[in-house]
Amino acid sequence: MRALPGPFRALSTFSSHFTKSFSTTSFCAAKFQPPKLDLTMAEFTTRTGNLLDRSVIESTLRRRMFYTPSFEIYGGERGLFDYGPPGCALQANVVDLWRKHFVLEEDMLEVDCTMLTPEAVLKTSGHVDKFADWMCKDPKSGEIFRADHLVEGVLEDRLKADKAARGQTVEVDEAKEAKKKKKSKEAKAEKLDDALVQEYEETLAKIDNYGGDELGELIKKYNIKGPTTGVDLEPPKAFNLMFQTQIGPSADKPNGYLRPETAQGQFLNFQKLLEFNQQSMPFASASIGKSFRNEISPRSGLLRVREFLMAEIEHFVDPEGGKKHPRFDEVKDTKLSLLNRKTQLAGSTKPDTVTIGDAVSSGLVDNETLGYFLVRIQDFLLKLGVDHSKLRFRQHMANEMAHYAADCWDAELFTTYGWIECVGCADRSAYDLTVHMNKTGAPLVVRETRAQPLVIEEYQIDLERKKLGPKFRKDAKAVEAAVDALSQDLREKLSLELQQNGKIEVDTPGVGSGKTELEKDLIKIEKRKRTEYVREYTPNVIEPSFGIGRILYSVMEHVFWTREGDGARGVLSFPPTVAPTKVLLVPLSGHQDFKPFIKKLTARLRRVGVSNKVDDSSASIGKRYARNDELGTPFGITIDFQTVKDNTLTLRERDSTKQVRASEDDIIGAVKSLVDGEETWEDVAKRLPAFEGQDLE
Amino acid sequence: MRALPGPFRALSTFSSHFTKSFSTTSFCAAKFQPPKLDLTMAEFTTRTGNLLDRSVIESTLRRRMFYTPSFEIYGGERGLFDYGPPGCALQANVVDLWRKHFVLEEDMLEVDCTMLTPEAVLKTSGHVDKFADWMCKDPKSGEIFRADHLVEGVLEDRLKADKAARGQTVEVDEAKEAKKKKKSKEAKAEKLDDALVQEYEETLAKIDNYGGDELGELIKKYNIKGPTTGVDLEPPKAFNLMFQTQIGPSADKPNGYLRPETAQGQFLNFQKLLEFNQQSMPFASASIGKSFRNEISPRSGLLRVREFLMAEIEHFVDPEGGKKHPRFDEVKDTKLSLLNRKTQLAGSTKPDTVTIGDAVSSGLVDNETLGYFLVRIQDFLLKLGVDHSKLRFRQHMANEMAHYAADCWDAELFTTYGWIECVGCADRSAYDLTVHMNKTGAPLVVRETRAQPLVIEEYQIDLERKKLGPKFRKDAKAVEAAVDALSQDLREKLSLELQQNGKIEVDTPGVGSGKTELEKDLIKIEKRKRTEYVREYTPNVIEPSFGIGRILYSVMEHVFWTREGDGARGVLSFPPTVAPTKVLLVPLSGHQDFKPFIKKLTARLRRVGVSNKVDDSSASIGKRYARNDELGTPFGITIDFQTVKDNTLTLRERDSTKQVRASEDDIIGAVKSLVDGEETWEDVAKRLPAFEGQDLE
Repeated sequence: MRALPGPFRALSTFSSHFTKSFSTTSFCAAKFQPPKLDLTMAEFTTRTGNLLDRSVIESTLRRRMFYTPSFEIYGGERGLFDYGPPGCALQANVVDLWRKHFVLEEDMLEVDCTMLTPEAVLKTSGHVDKFADWMCKDPKSGEIFRADHLVEGVLEDRLKADKAARGQTVEVDEAKEAKKKKKSKEAKAEKLDDALVQEYEETLAKIDNYGGDELGELIKKYNIKGPTTGVDLEPPKAFNLMFQTQIGPSADKPNGYLRPETAQGQFLNFQKLLEFNQQSMPFASASIGKSFRNEISPRSGLLRVREFLMAEIEHFVDPEGGKKHPRFDEVKDTKLSLLNRKTQLAGSTKPDTVTIGDAVSSGLVDNETLGYFLVRIQDFLLKLGVDHSKLRFRQHMANEMAHYAADCWDAELFTTYGWIECVGCADRSAYDLTVHMNKTGAPLVVRETRAQPLVIEEYQIDLERKKLGPKFRKDAKAVEAAVDALSQDLREKLSLELQQNGKIEVDTPGVGSGKTELEKDLIKIEKRKRTEYVREYTPNVIEPSFGIGRILYSVMEHVFWTREGDGARGVLSFPPTVAPTKVLLVPLSGHQDFKPFIKKLTARLRRVGVSNKVDDSSASIGKRYARNDELGTPFGITIDFQTVKDNTLTLRERDSTKQVRASEDDIIGAVKSLVDGEETWEDVAKRLPAFEGQDLE
Repeated sequence: MRALPGPFRALSTFSSHFTKSFSTTSFCAAKFQPPKLDLTMAEFTTRTGNLLDRSVIESTLRRRMFYTPSFEIYGGERGLFDYGPPGCALQANVVDLWRKHFVLEEDMLEVDCTMLTPEAVLKTSGHVDKFADWMCKDPKSGEIFRADHLVEGVLEDRLKADKAARGQTVEVDEAKEAKKKKKSKEAKAEKLDDALVQEYEETLAKIDNYGGDELGELIKKYNIKGPTTGVDLEPPKAFNLMFQTQIGPSADKPNGYLRPETAQGQFLNFQKLLEFNQQSMPFASASIGKSFRNEISPRSGLLRVREFLMAEIEHFVDPEGGKKHPRFDEVKDTKLSLLNRKTQLAGSTKPDTVTIGDAVSSGLVDNETLGYFLVRIQDFLLKLGVDHSKLRFRQHMANEMAHYAADCWDAELFTTYGWIECVGCADRSAYDLTVHMNKTGAPLVVRETRAQPLVIEEYQIDLERKKLGPKFRKDAKAVEAAVDALSQDLREKLSLELQQNGKIEVDTPGVGSGKTELEKDLIKIEKRKRTEYVREYTPNVIEPSFGIGRILYSVMEHVFWTREGDGARGVLSFPPTVAPTKVLLVPLSGHQDFKPFIKKLTARLRRVGVSNKVDDSSASIGKRYARNDELGTPFGITIDFQTVKDNTLTLRERDSTKQVRASEDDIIGAVKSLVDGEETWEDVAKRLPAFEGQDLE
């Protein structure tokens, strides 16, 4: 395993949006604001303007089994989570929407490739050598730390202590502080030199860019010790983030990995996909599936996990002609909140609101295809219920990107953890197809008949083969190969020499002295015209890459709020399209008369494709609704004694808790059109009579 | 790694349908017909009565990218396949249907658990010790063989050679045979003793039940050598079929596996799921996801792979009361083709056609819940396009099942590979929940308030604790525990002794001599009544388990046929619900006037949720349709000059190639109701005017 130099951090950034955010950097907003770190996190407020306490939403989500730590009865396994019924339904709906929004709408070629991947593939892609983080071991306790996180944590603590010492914090509970001091080696109020403060801040701003040796030096220089033991740590070692395994019984050592991204499978199938697409360009492939990263120390719940669902698009485009997109016109007036590189360099985090048309024409966003996808990504996120004011697109800094990258933007969502990178949208250029083609010889290229044949003027060489053979014997082939390999520049030079001297000298490694003289009876060099009818090129790749788990978690924070009133309860205001369950059926009581209605309604709703649940428990209607507000169920239908009489039903909307009452047909029709997004609740409330009679508690 | 005794084969069978069919047995029909092997495979004919040549369908499926070997440009990796666009869409539709048919229809609790699994979990489940196959190494070539497959192959060859020698085959091309003989060590016609023939046949019938030592003995006894080298093989060694890996940076050896089934994740979440279901029983959990098995030598295309999609249901049911199912009445008259244990023992493969009501009441199928699921499985498979005459349910033989199993039936589909186990439906009893509870102490049980409190008469013990402490001091607790642990039988006996002798002697391991005397001032034993208000029980599990890849492949064989005519081409007659693409849009030519119609139609179809593709290539309409018949697209819409004039369209049906012509609204409406399954093509053809004018070639 090699050291991890700067460039691969960039490469890894490129290889997918996760690489960077899941493994080589933290995701807190401050991280992305060079040159100065903003240590105070902006506050996260819900739609009702209240501060969101993360422990409240996380405990709600776990209690209602949106997600749960895996293998909990066995003590759990860090960085692994299971989705329970509502989380699973939410995930399925988001995936379904993604498929419709991207794959079907854009006619993409979806593929499902295996997660098990032979070593050779990931060797070529660079992951085997460079996809690693730096870890430090505490020799006394055996604990392992991610080196950059460790340095970062200690320096941040010291800066906080300095702030405190400078009187920038107030009212410190002394008893509490004394307790804390015992636990932590860092004093809570300790002034630093002004110069040191600046140095720390600069180090933190560059924390993502240090290699192992540099991190080791920082640890020594800043006297950072094992946090629990206080002893010197072992020097940083590279830890490859891929899970290794052995495929088949004959391997005597690990010969494969679990994929760290879905992209490679798509690249390897490029030739077949192009053929499937009847050789027509541009086109995109897409893939939805699990990927794996062996995080050194997973934290932050669903945001940094070892097994996660990704949805990735590889859009293959001709690098010539400015990477135009045929549907760019449809989106050009859409506004995006763009935090560009220049702004970040100036130390600000204030994004500009710009139409994508302007952003592309000014060169801020590199090309139309990239710009088109940024808009499509925004549309998708908004459909899921993302709060527009908590969405921004952040441009990668030059040192975050790979050397071959044209441009890269992340869609970031603001959460209680700060700004989280949830979608990456990068221009990977021709890098991946090129390395795999070079390694395997497979023609991962497009061959296109030229509309206008291309006439090329070049120096061509004729060898007098009949004489060459007898003269050079066993070396004849090597000489011929050396001559064939001559560049156009050399050929031009040699043609002049040949004219002037009647002979030339050619480098022929391995033949005689390494140089071979050729006289003009053996060789002729002439400038001639050649016509090329077919153009061959390696497509560039624009890659929008979605971390579904991160998106799910962020959306849940965005739609969560607390309904005031006695026993204030959480509400998850998912849009109907993505809500785990669409309709809750609530019979007034367990009375026998209600049962046939429930059965009929369930069947009818299912037939029109609306998922529904029955809650016929003995709790009050109000309680049952509250319980389902927490699950994000947008609509509720009550069956009461009036229903038995005249087959009318009440329909309740989750966010407003307003109700309407109408015939079964009208209510079913309204639900269907609400769930399909053809009507809003306001539309329905206008055309159906309001209902206020029911006692919900 | 321990040897692999008989019982675990059964256990493994039980742990999911794959275990057996994917790893411990082959899937050819002959395998399931004890006591005699039927060496001639029945022929597989398509719906038009023609013999299906497997190479034809497999090459079509690969050419059209339904699936493709993974990593092919790197030389491929055996047992791994990628799904291309049509395969991927087919898979997504099948999964969607599964979710609707089972999860939504039956209100199941879907969960999505991680594939990475810590060792402890799979140690408890038995997989670490026993989930293995036997492999043999050729010391000369290094080749590795699955021991049972090797024995089987050689014996089958010898039996064939015997048949040939007995004149049961005809016309042997001698030159060809001579060539073959050189390659293979087995002579092509070589008579065996009658006794040996019988011995071979008996061995083959039992091939699934041999352990490693027995296989080793068979190899010696029958003089089986390395097939390519002719040398003696190394003795069989157990090879665990799970992929091993290292989770986290601190492990110094592998500490986890990729799951071999989704079931364990569901069991571990039982408590939380019961809580989510408001403590109400019965209920089912369900899971769709990839599982992994490190096959020794994968073969047979999609049927035996190392990474595969499973859909599993764990239905938790009270073991008391006969495992009734509330919806059994709805299905009781449905007929199934059941190949029961008795028939198989009699050497026949002729299934009986029985209603599930009769099968359950006669005890053939163990209980209602199992029976209910068999019907639901059949319904599901038929919806996918399975040929009813190629579906049977085969009951497991006693030695295929685990000792704790009540009953187990496999849904098998007939293919060119023989009868393939595609869905297993087993009663796993309380096994899994019990072992995990015993290991972790988590209460994986149901606690239910008894409708009638249960009065229990039992011997109860009172200890005089005040005297016990001073008397036994540090041993007091141990004595108390030993007394508490006394069985009812012992208590009865001791109460008599106490009455008679005024003292008793109790086994107290680790205290004094191991026996402790207690006098009647210390202990009282009395028969008393106790009332139990809560019943606690471990649910049983009925587990329908689906191998999605096997189902996909089998369905593709079932719906494939060849249309006669010049340039006969394949047709995949998928039902509209599961067809990868529903509608092909075909403009008569590339004429500009057609473009707006195409655009409008595409958008309209998408809006009503109908996936569609445009083929505007320059091929004839007939060719374009033929190309899409191969992809299984059920409907085609042609846009011609008449369309431009009057906005009418023609609609073509794939199987009949019949067409109708009507207004855009009528055609879209018809397509929608065809795809939703509300109308058949016959319905549509009756109500819309036929069209025969178009020249398709």
